[in-house]
Amino acid sequence: MSGNSFGTLYRLTSFGESHGKAVGGVIEGVLPGTEIDELFIQAELNRRRPGQSAITTPRDEADQVELLSGVFEGKATGTPIGFVIWNKDQRSKDYGNIKDVYRPSHADYTYQSKYGIRDYRGGGRSSARETIARVVAGAVAKLMLKEYGVTVHAFTSSVGPIQLNKSLAELDLLNAETNIVRCPDDAKAEEMIAYIDQVRRDKDSVGGVITCVIKNTPVGLGEPVFGKLHAELGSAMLSINAVKGFEYGLGFGATHLKGSEHNDEFYMDGDKVRTRTNNSGGIQGGISNGEDIYFNVAFKPIATILKEQSTVTKDGEEVKSTTEGRHDPCVLPRAVPIVEAMAAMVIADYILLNKMYR
Amino acid sequence: MSGNSFGTLYRLTSFGESHGKAVGGVIEGVLPGTEIDELFIQAELNRRRPGQSAITTPRDEADQVELLSGVFEGKATGTPIGFVIWNKDQRSKDYGNIKDVYRPSHADYTYQSKYGIRDYRGGGRSSARETIARVVAGAVAKLMLKEYGVTVHAFTSSVGPIQLNKSLAELDLLNAETNIVRCPDDAKAEEMIAYIDQVRRDKDSVGGVITCVIKNTPVGLGEPVFGKLHAELGSAMLSINAVKGFEYGLGFGATHLKGSEHNDEFYMDGDKVRTRTNNSGGIQGGISNGEDIYFNVAFKPIATILKEQSTVTKDGEEVKSTTEGRHDPCVLPRAVPIVEAMAAMVIADYILLNKMYR
Amino acid sequence: MSGNSFGTLYRLTSFGESHGKAVGGVIEGVLPGTEIDELFIQAELNRRRPGQSAITTPRDEADQVELLSGVFEGKATGTPIGFVIWNKDQRSKDYGNIKDVYRPSHADYTYQSKYGIRDYRGGGRSSARETIARVVAGAVAKLMLKEYGVTVHAFTSSVGPIQLNKSLAELDLLNAETNIVRCPDDAKAEEMIAYIDQVRRDKDSVGGVITCVIKNTPVGLGEPVFGKLHAELGSAMLSINAVKGFEYGLGFGATHLKGSEHNDEFYMDGDKVRTRTNNSGGIQGGISNGEDIYFNVAFKPIATILKEQSTVTKDGEEVKSTTEGRHDPCVLPRAVPIVEAMAAMVIADYILLNKMYR
Amino acid sequence: MSGNSFGTLYRLTSFGESHGKAVGGVIEGVLPGTEIDELFIQAELNRRRPGQSAITTPRDEADQVELLSGVFEGKATGTPIGFVIWNKDQRSKDYGNIKDVYRPSHADYTYQSKYGIRDYRGGGRSSARETIARVVAGAVAKLMLKEYGVTVHAFTSSVGPIQLNKSLAELDLLNAETNIVRCPDDAKAEEMIAYIDQVRRDKDSVGGVITCVIKNTPVGLGEPVFGKLHAELGSAMLSINAVKGFEYGLGFGATHLKGSEHNDEFYMDGDKVRTRTNNSGGIQGGISNGEDIYFNVAFKPIATILKEQSTVTKDGEEVKSTTEGRHDPCVLPRAVPIVEAMAAMVIADYILLNKMYR
Repeated sequence: MSGNSFGTLYRLTSFGESHGKAVGGVIEGVLPGTEIDELFIQAELNRRRPGQSAITTPRDEADQVELLSGVFEGKATGTPIGFVIWNKDQRSKDYGNIKDVYRPSHADYTYQSKYGIRDYRGGGRSSARETIARVVAGAVAKLMLKEYGVTVHAFTSSVGPIQLNKSLAELDLLNAETNIVRCPDDAKAEEMIAYIDQVRRDKDSVGGVITCVIKNTPVGLGEPVFGKLHAELGSAMLSINAVKGFEYGLGFGATHLKGSEHNDEFYMDGDKVRTRTNNSGGIQGGISNGEDIYFNVAFKPIATILKEQSTVTKDGEEVKSTTEGRHDPCVLPRAVPIVEAMAAMVIADYILLNKMYR
Repeated sequence: MSGNSFGTLYRLTSFGESHGKAVGGVIEGVLPGTEIDELFIQAELNRRRPGQSAITTPRDEADQVELLSGVFEGKATGTPIGFVIWNKDQRSKDYGNIKDVYRPSHADYTYQSKYGIRDYRGGGRSSARETIARVVAGAVAKLMLKEYGVTVHAFTSSVGPIQLNKSLAELDLLNAETNIVRCPDDAKAEEMIAYIDQVRRDKDSVGGVITCVIKNTPVGLGEPVFGKLHAELGSAMLSINAVKGFEYGLGFGATHLKGSEHNDEFYMDGDKVRTRTNNSGGIQGGISNGEDIYFNVAFKPIATILKEQSTVTKDGEEVKSTTEGRHDPCVLPRAVPIVEAMAAMVIADYILLNKMYR
Repeated sequence: MSGNSFGTLYRLTSFGESHGKAVGGVIEGVLPGTEIDELFIQAELNRRRPGQSAITTPRDEADQVELLSGVFEGKATGTPIGFVIWNKDQRSKDYGNIKDVYRPSHADYTYQSKYGIRDYRGGGRSSARETIARVVAGAVAKLMLKEYGVTVHAFTSSVGPIQLNKSLAELDLLNAETNIVRCPDDAKAEEMIAYIDQVRRDKDSVGGVITCVIKNTPVGLGEPVFGKLHAELGSAMLSINAVKGFEYGLGFGATHLKGSEHNDEFYMDGDKVRTRTNNSGGIQGGISNGEDIYFNVAFKPIATILKEQSTVTKDGEEVKSTTEGRHDPCVLPRAVPIVEAMAAMVIADYILLNKMYR
Repeated sequence: MSGNSFGTLYRLTSFGESHGKAVGGVIEGVLPGTEIDELFIQAELNRRRPGQSAITTPRDEADQVELLSGVFEGKATGTPIGFVIWNKDQRSKDYGNIKDVYRPSHADYTYQSKYGIRDYRGGGRSSARETIARVVAGAVAKLMLKEYGVTVHAFTSSVGPIQLNKSLAELDLLNAETNIVRCPDDAKAEEMIAYIDQVRRDKDSVGGVITCVIKNTPVGLGEPVFGKLHAELGSAMLSINAVKGFEYGLGFGATHLKGSEHNDEFYMDGDKVRTRTNNSGGIQGGISNGEDIYFNVAFKPIATILKEQSTVTKDGEEVKSTTEGRHDPCVLPRAVPIVEAMAAMVIADYILLNKMYR
């Protein structure tokens, strides 16, 4: 447990601060022979990229990925893929005023307490800029999952009070990419965008929920007891900045049902065992049963707001503070590819782990 | 990632099936010199024990823990503590009829698919009987946490539709142990008990929510990025049988707030940095800030119900099936000590990890 | 790195002190369906058993293994195999006199310094009694390797000055089990036995070398860079009590050769790539090439001798000390099955790791 | 076990091929506040650098390290240190002829068999060029060890038949850096250099032994059973390219002694427990006792020689092959800093692990 690595066989080890030279990482467990489509990886990064729309931060970061190893003639060789993304648009001066002031609900105070020293510029290691490495490793995982036919799609299902109340069956998941808030329902997307825009003008921030659906997973992914597939998915999602909750299948909603309502009865679909309902979210006893895996991830409103707040300094002085700089009023549109990336990494890892039994 | 181990420095490796000879485990990372109070460990096991009240399964399992190593003259020596709990009340004949029938929403099908072989008796390794090992390791963790003044208390905060709608400040957490459903509010407890009793008579099952509060954690627990304290707590809770969701601080509720409402402003309490509100749930940037840590865990209604259900056999035949045997209509009262155990293990592990920086 | 676990996918976590209630462990990664022949496991334990011959310690320990989980109807289910071996013949009074006296070249002083507390009886956790758990896990590994046709044979190749100077090709490895020193050459075996007997009468101890040969390993076992197959074999062997050195292939002897003498030229044996010589010991670039793997393990003379020695007490007093009790004058005959066990575990683990690429 | 990471708390994850864009890595566990002296790191790299003397390869690689994260205002922040060293002097054309020919005693055949694909240029990932990352991580470890007063010094103690037969007490270890073969005895150094030069002219290669001494380690480093300090040192050394053996203390020489000769008697040096002899090499029961730790590492003659050899192609054709390119006739002078680097990493890791008990 270093905190900087995720996964067992398919594994990302990441590094980098918001305002250091670069962020990057090392990806292990990429199956030799996997086609490494760099344009696809870059496209995934672009989905996360700041400044991509009117409702995201105006910071303009190119975030060009550079692969340094592990790929030969376009294919993975099975050796680790090292990569860097150079930090370019660093306006460190924007952060000079927070050198000694702990921003409320940020990691400034806890990092300082833990380490006794910190790179305060832009939040340093606690900045969501580290998620770039996740998106790269997730994109590579998706390339690997292609061979297995597994797809991973996430979308914004609520923003503040505006909720998409439709079942998964009613949605065209691919439609999420056609609008800037990444909600597959166009009408709801418009409402969400308008709401976020209002929040932005109020110098405030807002949270919401991202839903993710994984299709075509083989039966049998997941390790018993402590390595349950949903426990790893939960850990993956909860490790993303600003996430406050995770539920899969019916989640918290399941607590209102009785067993007779919640249980998924089995039937035969040809020679395939299927369930008539999928309240379990595709996972039973911690192991995938072949049905769609789906889960929700709760994001808090991000801590950085442009309003004045009370706080304290490193020296224990109580002060009023106003953050400046450029920030997202709502992190969800850019978090959609991050959720997908983490999900893809978990599935890739568990596919490799499961090969042991073949 | 073996699935059978939890933790990095404070670590449990467990073994055992429901109807095998024994369940047990190996605990590593117990600080040398820790007083190992076996009566306390047994008392914790008794809180989980089946047959403890009218609303739990009538199976009568003594579940006596036997420590085999790592303790000398009443104190931990720093070497691993091996332990066993013998399985006594095994009525394997109760399970003969499920040898070839996949019980709906159980792990029968997924285990069979993954391994090609399984100990079907009582669910084998997928049985919640494995949580005995967690309770033992959690009890030892609690003994270690005593020295740090850390306390861990969980309680039932909802059963089906019956919710305890009180703030933590209004509750006397210790009161939870005075009733059989482990809800700190006596009136609500009575309602919950009546509800569970009705469900039991209906041969059905019901889920609910357990809330856990950790007090007096030092500032600084948690590893950045993938090792965030709440990610590990989430993984710990999601690994418990029947858990469908995890949220900490305001959790999913936080998605309805704006940043200006959700942020926890800092102030000085003497020379101590404190927050005026604690919407963050005691964790910021993945690292404890010294405020109370609190979280909710969603349990589905357990899959075993005594009603007839449709399902399929190992050979692909569709059948009607009725489970017999002795089961809990509601798992929550007995899950309270399991939630506490997992939380105590996480905190113990992160205290050890954090010593690196001292 | 807990110190109590060995392996990644095929993994043993062990516990137990010399004079506690039991030693035991948890084995993970046993392929489901593997036939678990308990008689074979017991037979392996008997090879390690004290009191088995005139040249081993007269302590009479039955060392009966009891499997507690993970086996159903004689086959591994893929869930962890917990096991215990009860400590029976504990004459703790023999060790009362070493409670406060650090025995020279034993772990008494270092354990006391590290932990501040220790179970001094019989060396506690530092006793070679922990190797029982290794032999059990190694026996299970051998059962798993059977399916792959892999065999693991070790033997005593030197005792003090008496060296078996024959090439592997000249030896019938199975012959090692026909004499009590486990040397495949009968004449040398007699010399070794006579030498050990003299050392025993001198109240002294003697070391030696064990050689191990692994046949029929698939090509491709080994992970690049830090996970080289021989690095893991080396770690495995060096972790055995009293081991001071490890070399594979020509080992230290290779330092005297030139590249043109040491290199193993390739040729085609039918459609199989083979090497004409095998100076590499079956491993090239850290990965098995299909030739026999062989290595040597150096054991020091064990520290327990019955002669008077100078030492110090826990309180810093210089004293003369004489150990009593029952000890082996030469650990090698009983270490042969331990070396095999560790080798079998490494190969089993690397076979599982290599499945990722299949 | 990924093969690309080394260590538990102090940990290097490395990436990079000989002829890819770069080699590099991520270092975790650097204590916050550690002074990161980049000139020192570069100086260590220069000790490993090709082309540094008449007896090393004439390839001229600048090998400039670039730190990308984890350092702020000259000090480690406790977050991971990412780094790259760009590959500059890549003459891939030199390797075109080995694309399909397996070089004897190289990793070409085993990599191809394992992965089914490989970057054949310069040996790809199996090239000793990956050791650059080790030297960087080792240099940072040395900076961390400075605070503890621990020093790590290695030197060439034999080259082919030429052996330095002096006790450690007779040697001035610092003198090793005054000659190009890194032997602390000037006369022996001259002999070794002459011998290597002859081997070079013969288009051959030669091996030898490197000895390493670690001074001032605290008492108590090492984890019992599988995590013994010397087992980890052994694993570290055996993972270095071309290493065939490892021994610590008297090593294989101990097998010739009796216990009464080998045991290290304790005495009091003031209030400090010391041993009169140090045959144990500073480690007892796997845990450091405060005496000097010393060990030997055997290097085979490297496989690349400029003489014609018999081998086979990827397609199973037997051919004669002559390697071209620029290579070291003797790897030892450049391996000295690599041995030190791995030793420093192990000690740094075990110091962090041992903090758990403080």
